[in-house]
Amino acid sequence: MPTILGRNQYGKAENRVVRITRDGATHHIKDLNVSVALSGDMEDVHYSGSNANVLPTDTTKNTVFAFAKEHGIESAEQFGIHLARHFVTSQEPIHRARIRVEEYAWDRIATSPAHQREHGEHSFVRKGQETRLTQVTYDGERWEVVSGLKDLTVLNSTDSEFHGFVKDRYTTLKETRDRFLATSVAARWRFNWTDDERPMPDWETSYERTKQHLLQAFAETYSLSLQQTMYRMGAQIIEHREEIDEVRFSLPNRHHFQVDLEPFGLDNESADGAVYFAADRPYGLIEATILRDGCEALIPADLTNL
Amino acid sequence: MPTILGRNQYGKAENRVVRITRDGATHHIKDLNVSVALSGDMEDVHYSGSNANVLPTDTTKNTVFAFAKEHGIESAEQFGIHLARHFVTSQEPIHRARIRVEEYAWDRIATSPAHQREHGEHSFVRKGQETRLTQVTYDGERWEVVSGLKDLTVLNSTDSEFHGFVKDRYTTLKETRDRFLATSVAARWRFNWTDDERPMPDWETSYERTKQHLLQAFAETYSLSLQQTMYRMGAQIIEHREEIDEVRFSLPNRHHFQVDLEPFGLDNESADGAVYFAADRPYGLIEATILRDGCEALIPADLTNL
Amino acid sequence: MPTILGRNQYGKAENRVVRITRDGATHHIKDLNVSVALSGDMEDVHYSGSNANVLPTDTTKNTVFAFAKEHGIESAEQFGIHLARHFVTSQEPIHRARIRVEEYAWDRIATSPAHQREHGEHSFVRKGQETRLTQVTYDGERWEVVSGLKDLTVLNSTDSEFHGFVKDRYTTLKETRDRFLATSVAARWRFNWTDDERPMPDWETSYERTKQHLLQAFAETYSLSLQQTMYRMGAQIIEHREEIDEVRFSLPNRHHFQVDLEPFGLDNESADGAVYFAADRPYGLIEATILRDGCEALIPADLTNL
Amino acid sequence: MPTILGRNQYGKAENRVVRITRDGATHHIKDLNVSVALSGDMEDVHYSGSNANVLPTDTTKNTVFAFAKEHGIESAEQFGIHLARHFVTSQEPIHRARIRVEEYAWDRIATSPAHQREHGEHSFVRKGQETRLTQVTYDGERWEVVSGLKDLTVLNSTDSEFHGFVKDRYTTLKETRDRFLATSVAARWRFNWTDDERPMPDWETSYERTKQHLLQAFAETYSLSLQQTMYRMGAQIIEHREEIDEVRFSLPNRHHFQVDLEPFGLDNESADGAVYFAADRPYGLIEATILRDGCEALIPADLTNL
Repeated sequence: MPTILGRNQYGKAENRVVRITRDGATHHIKDLNVSVALSGDMEDVHYSGSNANVLPTDTTKNTVFAFAKEHGIESAEQFGIHLARHFVTSQEPIHRARIRVEEYAWDRIATSPAHQREHGEHSFVRKGQETRLTQVTYDGERWEVVSGLKDLTVLNSTDSEFHGFVKDRYTTLKETRDRFLATSVAARWRFNWTDDERPMPDWETSYERTKQHLLQAFAETYSLSLQQTMYRMGAQIIEHREEIDEVRFSLPNRHHFQVDLEPFGLDNESADGAVYFAADRPYGLIEATILRDGCEALIPADLTNL
Repeated sequence: MPTILGRNQYGKAENRVVRITRDGATHHIKDLNVSVALSGDMEDVHYSGSNANVLPTDTTKNTVFAFAKEHGIESAEQFGIHLARHFVTSQEPIHRARIRVEEYAWDRIATSPAHQREHGEHSFVRKGQETRLTQVTYDGERWEVVSGLKDLTVLNSTDSEFHGFVKDRYTTLKETRDRFLATSVAARWRFNWTDDERPMPDWETSYERTKQHLLQAFAETYSLSLQQTMYRMGAQIIEHREEIDEVRFSLPNRHHFQVDLEPFGLDNESADGAVYFAADRPYGLIEATILRDGCEALIPADLTNL
Repeated sequence: MPTILGRNQYGKAENRVVRITRDGATHHIKDLNVSVALSGDMEDVHYSGSNANVLPTDTTKNTVFAFAKEHGIESAEQFGIHLARHFVTSQEPIHRARIRVEEYAWDRIATSPAHQREHGEHSFVRKGQETRLTQVTYDGERWEVVSGLKDLTVLNSTDSEFHGFVKDRYTTLKETRDRFLATSVAARWRFNWTDDERPMPDWETSYERTKQHLLQAFAETYSLSLQQTMYRMGAQIIEHREEIDEVRFSLPNRHHFQVDLEPFGLDNESADGAVYFAADRPYGLIEATILRDGCEALIPADLTNL
Repeated sequence: MPTILGRNQYGKAENRVVRITRDGATHHIKDLNVSVALSGDMEDVHYSGSNANVLPTDTTKNTVFAFAKEHGIESAEQFGIHLARHFVTSQEPIHRARIRVEEYAWDRIATSPAHQREHGEHSFVRKGQETRLTQVTYDGERWEVVSGLKDLTVLNSTDSEFHGFVKDRYTTLKETRDRFLATSVAARWRFNWTDDERPMPDWETSYERTKQHLLQAFAETYSLSLQQTMYRMGAQIIEHREEIDEVRFSLPNRHHFQVDLEPFGLDNESADGAVYFAADRPYGLIEATILRDGCEALIPADLTNL
C-alpha cells in the first residue's frame, strides 16, 4: 500500500450548551460552545470503514449535554476536564481527548427592587466583549490546559512611536513619534498544572486576573513597537500568575491612519485631537510566544479559531 | 424609450471614522461607520453617463472626515445632521441626503493611579455589546431622525409561557408553561423632531434611557408570547420618552430547547436548573411597529443592516 | 392607551430544506432556505398575549418540510406560491403571507462512465456563485413575485471612464479615462404576473435569461459612470423579458486602485497590464429602480438580505 | 529575567492584489490575498523596542505589489517563491519567510462575437466555488510548499451507510444503511519539491488534477464512514500525483437529517426521493493526514484559515 494514515481525530464540534442553575428564583447562567476531538486506535475506520472502535460523534454530543446536567459547569476548564477524563477512561480504543470550549459572558439586566423581590433575577444581557477560550487535552496520564481569549479590541490613542527601522528599495513609510496603536487580541496561555495529584488552579480567578494584567500592560507600556507592547503583555502575565508558564499572542495591527486634511484647509495635527481612518486590510500581524525561563513552548504557532 | 428611471441614490458607504478629542492627556473617543446616500437631479448620469450633476462619492467620503475635524462628533445624530444639511444646501442638484451611522462604544482601560497622574488616560477597550445606529434624512425642509440598535442579545430563563395557539394538520409543538425566551434585539425609533425651529432632543441621554426602558420591559414582562413582550418593550419607550413617536422591532426568537436527558437516566426538569441546546436556524422572526396613538408609521417594515 | 400596534408579521425564518428527487439511480437536488412571514388579525397576541389566532412558527416550519415532499420543488417561485396560498386560504386570521427563498445551485461531480452505469449519479458540488432569491406575497387575491440574486461579483478591467463631475471644496479625486469597474450585484426584479387566471412565467427559464442579460449588459456597456452601466443592466432586462416590469439594483462600487509603483522605479501604466489594490471599505453604493414605462415602482428602496 | 521570548514572526497580512495582464484587448486576471510572515534576529524589538532589525510591515506590503508588476503572477506558488526568496536573501536579520496566498478564480463573461471583435475580452465574473490556497516557506536552503483549498462543498445523496459503531450509556443514534453525506472540504497537500536544484512542479496543472482526484474519490467511494471516504480522497491524490507526499483534511460532517413526516401522513422514505433538514451546528469534525509511505508528516494538525 503506497499510502498510510497519519495523525487523525474526530468528534462533534460546536455543541452549544446553556446551563441554568436555579438558586430559588435567582438564576445563574453558563453559556458554552463545546467541541470534542478524540483519537486512538482508529486505523480500521479509515482503511476499511469498520466502525467497531468508533464511538459516534452523536454520542459525544449527548455526553456534553448530559455532563452539563450531571456535573454542572463550574468553569469551562473544569467542564473540559470532566469530559476528557470520561472519554479516555471509559473507551479502550480512545487514547487521547481534546476538549475545546468557547464561553460567552452575560450580565444581569437591572430590574426594579419590587420586581426583584417578587420574581427573583433571571434576565440577562450578553456582555459581548471578548470570547473566553479553553482547550483541555488528556492522554490518560498528563493534562494540558491552555486557556485564552479572542476578539478583545483595544487601542491607545497616543504614547506609541515607530522609527529606527530598516529601509530598503521598497520602503516608503515615514517615521513617527506619535501614532495610534490598536489591536484585536487573540491570546492563549498554558497552565503548568498537568497532574491529578497536584491541586488545580482556581480557573475563574485566574482568568479574570490574567485578562486584567494583559489589559494593564497594554495600557501602561509606552510603545516603540507593537512587538515590545506584546512582549510586555506576556511578561506581566508570567510575572504575576505563577500557574501560567507560556503565553502566545496573535495581534493584528489595526491601522488607524491620521487623515490628511490639508487639502481642505484643516490642521489635523492640532492640539485638540485628530481624525483617523480605521483601515480593514491589509494589517500588520505580530505573533510571539512569551515563556517562563526554563519552560518549554508547547502552544502551536498558529492559533486556530475555536 | 420603453424603460424609465425610478428612485435612485448614491454615495460613499461605510466610512470608518475615529475622532479623538484631547483634553490635555485625557482623551475621548468617538468611533463611527458613516454612510452617505444622496439623490436629486440624477437622470442624466443614468441615461447618458454625464456626471455634470454628480458630486463624486470620493468627495462625500472626504467631507465625512473633514467634518469630524471641523465640527467634532457630539453625537451620531448631530454629526449626521451636519452632513445632511451640508449636502442639500451646498449642491443645487442634490435634493435629499440620508446619512446612516453605526457607533461602537468603548470603555476606558483601568490603569494605576500613578500611571494616570503621569500619563493621563488614553487607553480604551471596545465594549462590544450592541451597535448603536442612527439615520438622518433631510430634504431641505424637514428632518427625519430614526435611531436604534442591533445585536443586543438578551434572555429570560423563566417567566415565559406559550400555549392556547392554533393547531392545524402540521402542528406538533407541545404547549408549555415555562420556557426560555431569548432574542437578539434589532430596534429603530423615530424622533418627532423634524424642524430646525424646535429644540433638538439630547441625543446621548435619549439613547441611554431608551435602551434602559427596552431592557427593563424585556426583563419585567411575564411573557405569554414574544409578541406580547415586544409590544411592552415598544410601549414602555413610547410612554416614557416623549421625543419618540414610533418604534420598530425585528426580534429573532433564538430557540433554546430543553434537552431530553431521560435516555441517560437524568431528570432535566429538576428544581436545581436545566440544560438547553441553543439552536441556530430556523428561528422565529417577530416584527412589529409600536406607535404613539395618532402618529403615522414611517419606519420601513424591513430593517436593513446599517 | 397612548400606544397602538402598527404593521406586524411573524413566522419561522431560514428553514434549510433540501429536496432530493430520485429518477432511478439519478438524483436531482433543490437546496433552499425558506422564510415564512404571516400577518392578519394579530392585535390580541400583542396586547394580551392571547395566542388564539396564532399558528405557531413551529407549524410554519413543519409545513415547509411537508410541502417539499407533497408538492416537490419545481422552482423557488412555484414553491413559494404553494406555501403562501396555503397559509392565507387555510387560516382565517391570516390575511397575508410572504415567503422568501434563497436558492443555492449545485453542479454534478463528474464520475467515470463505468461508475455512472453501475451506480447512477448522485454526487454534487456546490456552484458557489450567486445566491438566487425570490419573494412571493399573497393577500388572498393578488400575487406579487419579486425574484433576484445577490453576491454576483463582476468586473471590467477597462472600458470605464469617470470625469466631468462636480468639484467642491472637498473634492480631490482626479478624472480618469481608464479605470477598473467592479461590483457585487444585488438585484431584484418584479414579475407582472399577479393573477391566478393568467398563465405563470416559466420561472427557471426566466431566471437564467435574466441573469444572462444582466451580465451581458455589464460587459458590453462602455461605462462613463456606474450609474450608466446599472441603468443599461436594468433596461436590457426590461427590453428582453416581457414578464418583468421593474428592476432594482444595489451596486457597491468595489474600488480597485491602481498602485503607485513609481517610488520603486516601476511604471504601472505600461501596456502589458497593471497591478491594483482591491479595497474593502469605504465603497461607493449606487442604487436605482429601472421601470417599464407606465408601470409602478413597488420594490422597496432598501434591499434586505434574504 | 523570569521570562523569555519564544517563536515569533511578523509581517503584513491580507494584501489584496489584483494583476491584469494585457494581451492586446484580451485581458487575463490573477486575484490574490497575500500574507507575509518573517522571522529571524528579532529579540531586540521585543525586549527593548529597537527596530534596527525590523523591515516594516508596510515595506512587505509594498514588495507584494511591486513584485506583482515586476515578476507577474504565473501561479500563487511561483509568486510566493519569488517573495520568500527576496525577503530571506535581501535582509540579513531575516532567516525565514512564510508567504500565504488565497486565490479567487474568475470566469469570462460571454459577450457577442461582434463586441468581442471590436472591444476584446476584459469582463469577468467571480467563480465563487472553492478558495485556492498555498503556503510557501523558505529558510535560505530548503523550500516547503503546501497548497490546498477551502470551502469546496460536496454531497452524496446516497451510497453512504453508518452502523456497527460502539454503543455506550450516552448512545441514542440509530444505525443506518442509507444516509446523506455532505461536507465542506478543507484540504492541504505538501509537495516534495524542496530544492532549487530540482525542477518545480507545474503548479497550475497540479492544482487542477488534484482537485479532480479529490472530487472523484468523494463521488466514487461507497461510504461506510466519512473517515473511509476521507482516506480514499487522500490516497487517490497520493497515488496519482507523484509531486505530493502528504495530504491533510479537515472535514465537517454537514448533517442532513431526513425529516420525520409521519405526523403529517407522509412517507418520507418513498422511492421518489426525500426531504432533508440541513443543520448548522453541531457538526461532526473528521480530520486526518494521509501520507506517502516512508514520508514524514509536516502539515500541522490544525488547519488555519488563511
